[in-house]
Amino acid sequence: MRRNRVFGDLLSQLFERTGQFRGQDDRRSLPELCEALLSAEGEVSGYSLAATLLARYAQANDADRLAFFQSLNADFDIDAEQVAALARAYADTPSTETFRALSQAAEPRRQELLRRLNQPVGATHALVGMRTDLLRLLPVHPDLKRTDIDFMHLLRSWFNRGFLVLREIDWDTPARILDKIVDYEAVHQIDDLDDLRRRLNPADRRCFAFFHPSMPDEPLIFVEVALTSEIPGSIAALLEEERDPLDPADARAAVFYSISNCQKGLAGISFGNLLIKQVVTELSATLPSLQTFVTLSPIPGLNAWLSTKTDDAEIGAAVRSVLSAENPRDIPAEPLKALAARYLLTAKTDAGAPLDPVARFHLGNGAEIHDLHAAGDPSPNGLALSSGAMVNYLYDLRRTERNHEDFATNGTIAASRTVQTLSSTAPGPKSKESVA
Amino acid sequence: MRRNRVFGDLLSQLFERTGQFRGQDDRRSLPELCEALLSAEGEVSGYSLAATLLARYAQANDADRLAFFQSLNADFDIDAEQVAALARAYADTPSTETFRALSQAAEPRRQELLRRLNQPVGATHALVGMRTDLLRLLPVHPDLKRTDIDFMHLLRSWFNRGFLVLREIDWDTPARILDKIVDYEAVHQIDDLDDLRRRLNPADRRCFAFFHPSMPDEPLIFVEVALTSEIPGSIAALLEEERDPLDPADARAAVFYSISNCQKGLAGISFGNLLIKQVVTELSATLPSLQTFVTLSPIPGLNAWLSTKTDDAEIGAAVRSVLSAENPRDIPAEPLKALAARYLLTAKTDAGAPLDPVARFHLGNGAEIHDLHAAGDPSPNGLALSSGAMVNYLYDLRRTERNHEDFATNGTIAASRTVQTLSSTAPGPKSKESVA
Amino acid sequence: MRRNRVFGDLLSQLFERTGQFRGQDDRRSLPELCEALLSAEGEVSGYSLAATLLARYAQANDADRLAFFQSLNADFDIDAEQVAALARAYADTPSTETFRALSQAAEPRRQELLRRLNQPVGATHALVGMRTDLLRLLPVHPDLKRTDIDFMHLLRSWFNRGFLVLREIDWDTPARILDKIVDYEAVHQIDDLDDLRRRLNPADRRCFAFFHPSMPDEPLIFVEVALTSEIPGSIAALLEEERDPLDPADARAAVFYSISNCQKGLAGISFGNLLIKQVVTELSATLPSLQTFVTLSPIPGLNAWLSTKTDDAEIGAAVRSVLSAENPRDIPAEPLKALAARYLLTAKTDAGAPLDPVARFHLGNGAEIHDLHAAGDPSPNGLALSSGAMVNYLYDLRRTERNHEDFATNGTIAASRTVQTLSSTAPGPKSKESVA
Amino acid sequence: MRRNRVFGDLLSQLFERTGQFRGQDDRRSLPELCEALLSAEGEVSGYSLAATLLARYAQANDADRLAFFQSLNADFDIDAEQVAALARAYADTPSTETFRALSQAAEPRRQELLRRLNQPVGATHALVGMRTDLLRLLPVHPDLKRTDIDFMHLLRSWFNRGFLVLREIDWDTPARILDKIVDYEAVHQIDDLDDLRRRLNPADRRCFAFFHPSMPDEPLIFVEVALTSEIPGSIAALLEEERDPLDPADARAAVFYSISNCQKGLAGISFGNLLIKQVVTELSATLPSLQTFVTLSPIPGLNAWLSTKTDDAEIGAAVRSVLSAENPRDIPAEPLKALAARYLLTAKTDAGAPLDPVARFHLGNGAEIHDLHAAGDPSPNGLALSSGAMVNYLYDLRRTERNHEDFATNGTIAASRTVQTLSSTAPGPKSKESVA
Repeated sequence: MRRNRVFGDLLSQLFERTGQFRGQDDRRSLPELCEALLSAEGEVSGYSLAATLLARYAQANDADRLAFFQSLNADFDIDAEQVAALARAYADTPSTETFRALSQAAEPRRQELLRRLNQPVGATHALVGMRTDLLRLLPVHPDLKRTDIDFMHLLRSWFNRGFLVLREIDWDTPARILDKIVDYEAVHQIDDLDDLRRRLNPADRRCFAFFHPSMPDEPLIFVEVALTSEIPGSIAALLEEERDPLDPADARAAVFYSISNCQKGLAGISFGNLLIKQVVTELSATLPSLQTFVTLSPIPGLNAWLSTKTDDAEIGAAVRSVLSAENPRDIPAEPLKALAARYLLTAKTDAGAPLDPVARFHLGNGAEIHDLHAAGDPSPNGLALSSGAMVNYLYDLRRTERNHEDFATNGTIAASRTVQTLSSTAPGPKSKESVA
Repeated sequence: MRRNRVFGDLLSQLFERTGQFRGQDDRRSLPELCEALLSAEGEVSGYSLAATLLARYAQANDADRLAFFQSLNADFDIDAEQVAALARAYADTPSTETFRALSQAAEPRRQELLRRLNQPVGATHALVGMRTDLLRLLPVHPDLKRTDIDFMHLLRSWFNRGFLVLREIDWDTPARILDKIVDYEAVHQIDDLDDLRRRLNPADRRCFAFFHPSMPDEPLIFVEVALTSEIPGSIAALLEEERDPLDPADARAAVFYSISNCQKGLAGISFGNLLIKQVVTELSATLPSLQTFVTLSPIPGLNAWLSTKTDDAEIGAAVRSVLSAENPRDIPAEPLKALAARYLLTAKTDAGAPLDPVARFHLGNGAEIHDLHAAGDPSPNGLALSSGAMVNYLYDLRRTERNHEDFATNGTIAASRTVQTLSSTAPGPKSKESVA
Repeated sequence: MRRNRVFGDLLSQLFERTGQFRGQDDRRSLPELCEALLSAEGEVSGYSLAATLLARYAQANDADRLAFFQSLNADFDIDAEQVAALARAYADTPSTETFRALSQAAEPRRQELLRRLNQPVGATHALVGMRTDLLRLLPVHPDLKRTDIDFMHLLRSWFNRGFLVLREIDWDTPARILDKIVDYEAVHQIDDLDDLRRRLNPADRRCFAFFHPSMPDEPLIFVEVALTSEIPGSIAALLEEERDPLDPADARAAVFYSISNCQKGLAGISFGNLLIKQVVTELSATLPSLQTFVTLSPIPGLNAWLSTKTDDAEIGAAVRSVLSAENPRDIPAEPLKALAARYLLTAKTDAGAPLDPVARFHLGNGAEIHDLHAAGDPSPNGLALSSGAMVNYLYDLRRTERNHEDFATNGTIAASRTVQTLSSTAPGPKSKESVA
Repeated sequence: MRRNRVFGDLLSQLFERTGQFRGQDDRRSLPELCEALLSAEGEVSGYSLAATLLARYAQANDADRLAFFQSLNADFDIDAEQVAALARAYADTPSTETFRALSQAAEPRRQELLRRLNQPVGATHALVGMRTDLLRLLPVHPDLKRTDIDFMHLLRSWFNRGFLVLREIDWDTPARILDKIVDYEAVHQIDDLDDLRRRLNPADRRCFAFFHPSMPDEPLIFVEVALTSEIPGSIAALLEEERDPLDPADARAAVFYSISNCQKGLAGISFGNLLIKQVVTELSATLPSLQTFVTLSPIPGLNAWLSTKTDDAEIGAAVRSVLSAENPRDIPAEPLKALAARYLLTAKTDAGAPLDPVARFHLGNGAEIHDLHAAGDPSPNGLALSSGAMVNYLYDLRRTERNHEDFATNGTIAASRTVQTLSSTAPGPKSKESVA
């Protein structure tokens, strides 16, 4: 079939050819260009002004970028006096016209500026990159946080679930995108494309990513899945090079062993919950033999917590037996698992949430702590953080909603009988009340 | 090549299968569902709650929909007192935390509600449909305008230029989309697909549309183009059934003879300016022989204006000679063209803009009034509105930016020497000052 | 994702631009061009010579085309003396070199000519069209049959099953292809695209076609399918405009109610058997609720056979009661069904095959005669051919292979108990032996 | 847009599920399965029989495969006596029926067998693989050449130019295909995908391949192209890692520096001529600044020829100065270029064709010898074969046809003035007559 064409960057070519694109000649500063983009000039020539501004930003050094953000922060902010007056007036007489004026006044002008910047091909990715810069500058310039709140607001609206597209990543995916998977893998490093081939190409492996239509070459988040005959406890076994791949039709479990966010500029916008659930749905539909959907996850906060308990009256001895092992092989498995269970079930932040960040994520999604494993991750990193312990979180979509509600409302942590028993074998208080 | 799959509505199937989708059983009212979607429940079960809410809205009658909008308007509005207090505080001490609180307070909760609704497949289109309902209810319920301001705000952000996709529409386009072209054509009616074939299929015809990735079957706006050897003056000749199509390689002019907006729910969001310019770019690149890009446009306000001038001292006689013609053939061509030129160059709204809405659109885009034609549109509609007169607006991308600036700043109307001369042949004041 | 481009007719443009394409200037006759294409010139300039030849053929009138075929037939035939000598030599001494020479000598030169013609974009379709012309000329010029044997040989090899692609035809199919479906429908006429929309668009309808990759806009054969809750007996009910479509998930039967071959030039190359089986496979996989796959077929030879039996001692009375009905409503249902069963089970050609051509096709595919219906097709055509009777053939893929073998080996006709009983209720000999 | 699906290997799944696929249970030998496929059984169950046969062949060892080919060669050959008789009869009385019988008898049954094998998904590639085996067995079993003649005949017909698809290979190509490019590169080795990225990804590089629609993951032949500002003389400079890529819009020359055939099983079927010409066309159309299309080619036969000339009265001294250089840097450039020119213009095979195989290919395509370079390929291989000399062949599509005719008819070798002069500077006879 002949295909209808989709058009790309012809428009940018046009501006160059017709001289409308004044990137080279336009001597105005970045803040002046911002003002122009928001003026009448921006209404007809917005495309070319936005292209100029983005090109200039791309060439700017860090000092100029900081000045740009400071201008956004100061000069494109709200007029609080005006907002207060309009809000006062609207509280007294809620007219439509006052509402409209208030709406407009209460939105910092930088939001409209960012929307107008988002016109040329590639602009969305450029704006995400801009926020990456901003996040980098924030620690030293905390006042820029106001501008970041507006970036965040806009990006959250644009990267809304309804606009995302789930795609399978496999060995038929364009190499340009596979390069990104290699770069963005955050959990278990991938060396190069040849290494990635081992992860993606075997029949018992799957990978899925969310994309945004305006950034078609850029995954937002991806998850790697292993199809297995039973729930695994060791990442090394899972990734072994010399495996015989399992026939997918015989798989009983799908194991989510790595989830990586790709875009620093989208920090704070969460895609993981929906990605996991949509992948569970997709795999259920295409592989009816699958009965269990679990993660194989690290326990990054375990050892830090254990080291605060070395003198604990009840569990101190067990803790010391784990932490003092000189050789990984000497780490005692049962105490480690029991302590890990105790940690996941009882260690809390000041706000009462689970102390372990990975646990917070999965429990917040409505998952359950399903099983614990010693010697699951014998890498230096795994030994340092959790003495090699790993955990399976179970996603049973029939229960995630109720689990989430119990967790959100009462802080109840869903855990299997196995994990509850493990925790109770650890010496010390069992904190029964927090276990479902 | 095997294709990577793109996933669609599996998720909705999931919710039905697993019972998470409570559309049938959930007895809560639409406003109650809205509250649930904004609560903690909405964070994990947002997809299913949104699907339920959209399904219930789809089944609701007008009274229930009105009640839904009234609830959005009243119960999901801002707390103006709180906004006033926070704005006051921020004016006194501009802290980040106050800014964040003010930002949140100043945005009506219904905006976040609409964003959370936009999760299931098809939600974006459903929300556009919701606004169509709202616009229909507005004349009788003008207070709902506040809610419309928020719909508009969100849709303008989502249908931002950077997210739109230009596609060519031709006889290789899926029939489902062609059906929409037939339905949405607003200027020169298309009877059915067989009629559309005559418009699209000849080698000297083109059609382009903007789409949004989340509504892939729904054009937002489209323009129909005829490739011609010279600038035409008559729509009937252009659309004649028994034409010999021109070899596109021999075409000198591209004529935009019909532009139609497709989505009532996107009223107020303008796509036309950029569509025309992008199509000019595209055609320039693929058909280098093209030298001129013009419209063949109606003059919808001409006769209404003429009828106010029948007793005018200077042009009254000419006006009467045009308006009194009993038979279209008897309408005198030269006076008609002169009066049309005078109308387009001098007739203004109270605000000083061109009185003619089509002229406002094209002049606002930076186009120029290029030529006028009598007997251009002999349809009953064309005779009633403009005694059959039509006009060409010229798009010369080297000049659109300056034309727009002159027009926006000084109200200057760009017109060819021909049109200026025509206007000056009409009796009465020539208003030279407004002609470039 | 950016797409890798697939290239089309650039090459033909090239030849025109560089003057290599001598279509206009080349004064040689069609047979001379054929000789050139087979000569050394054809090896490097084959593309352009083939394009010239096909263009010249397209412009030729019938007399010239006949001359062209006669030249193929006479001048590009084998040299039988040489073949005889080489075969003789090979029978004596089977050397490789003699085999090669014999192979080459035994293949008429027109076969290599046709292969070399198949180079430019569109050539495959042009060659199929050439055979359409040839088939039209054959009745008057039966000697051209030799050339047709070679066309047939080549097309059968090129349109081999391994090269065909099955595609679903629905309302998302390009209009250009839908136009072809309207044109090629051979069983139950489709008036225009609006009529086709009623056939394709309802949720309980399906259509599938085979394509060849070199003719992407041209279906080779297509089948229309209705999803139903039970096996239907009437085509009018099936195609009724004011139906409520069935939810496909509730469908129990898939009914093949129309199969149309599209390319006259491929007459004699059978695609129907594999199309039906592949569609059965596809539908089984995507709609697990389906339990039965049947046709709703005409019985085109029934009345012609009945009219030879009006004086038959046993069934003559029944036959006359059917054929003499003045009003369709008066046709007696039971005798009609019994006679139709008798006809399908017992009427044979001289060669012993079923007399009815549709029966021959489906029984040859391994299908079974499942049920018979009076008043199934009340159209004038249906009444004339079969007094309105229709038949269901059942495709049960577990049995098609054995049915086919029994049919091919012993002439056994597979039929349901119902149909066997019906046949036996007709007066006269029951021919038990031929019923499985 | 929703996409119409293209169906793949569902059919094979079907046969497994329904038990029709008897690959496991069918105990018949490969030759018995061949007979079954050609019998009535093959007509209805051809798909499953072919799948069984191909699966069994895939599992067979070399002895069984040899037996299979020997059976094809002996048992599925022609009956030469019958062919002789029929040819005799046809020579006497050329009736259509005799022609048909002769056509059938003269085609070995193995051809129809191969056509019937080509039904399941992947069969075409399997048959190409079968011929690879056959070619490997030929040297030891030369009698199998008859079977190879039939393989070749069929594959040449199926891989006809009209069925091939040109695709661009770049970094957006699926990794599965890029793996094949790495494997099949025959001229300048590519180490892995990271190495390939350097070849494909820079803006001034291009790669194009022919595919067959039935083998969508398998390139047939590909060519690598460098865009340059002038005609290069050194492959090392061309492939240097630390280059600044040229802006393609500034390129003046397109250099074909590597052409690789991919499918051993298609040996003897030439795609290179058309690939080069189609790529020239494509690049001309998309990069109008290109003025020259040349190769940068090895001269593989040079040193072998020189070593026969060491005692030559006229050029012996020059030859010895080249061949005796101990260090590559000491090879004298001018004598080397002059001798290479002399070699390319005068060295002939017994049949009168150019001795150098690469020269034969390009001159046969109508290209011209454009320039010669010393120190063009300093790799061990390049030094061994041609003392590092390389050559540019020029493709000027306005002249290729005439060049080819002169070459084919008179053996004239087209060469630039530069190359002719170089040749004449070498001592010895100048053989003017063969230079155009």
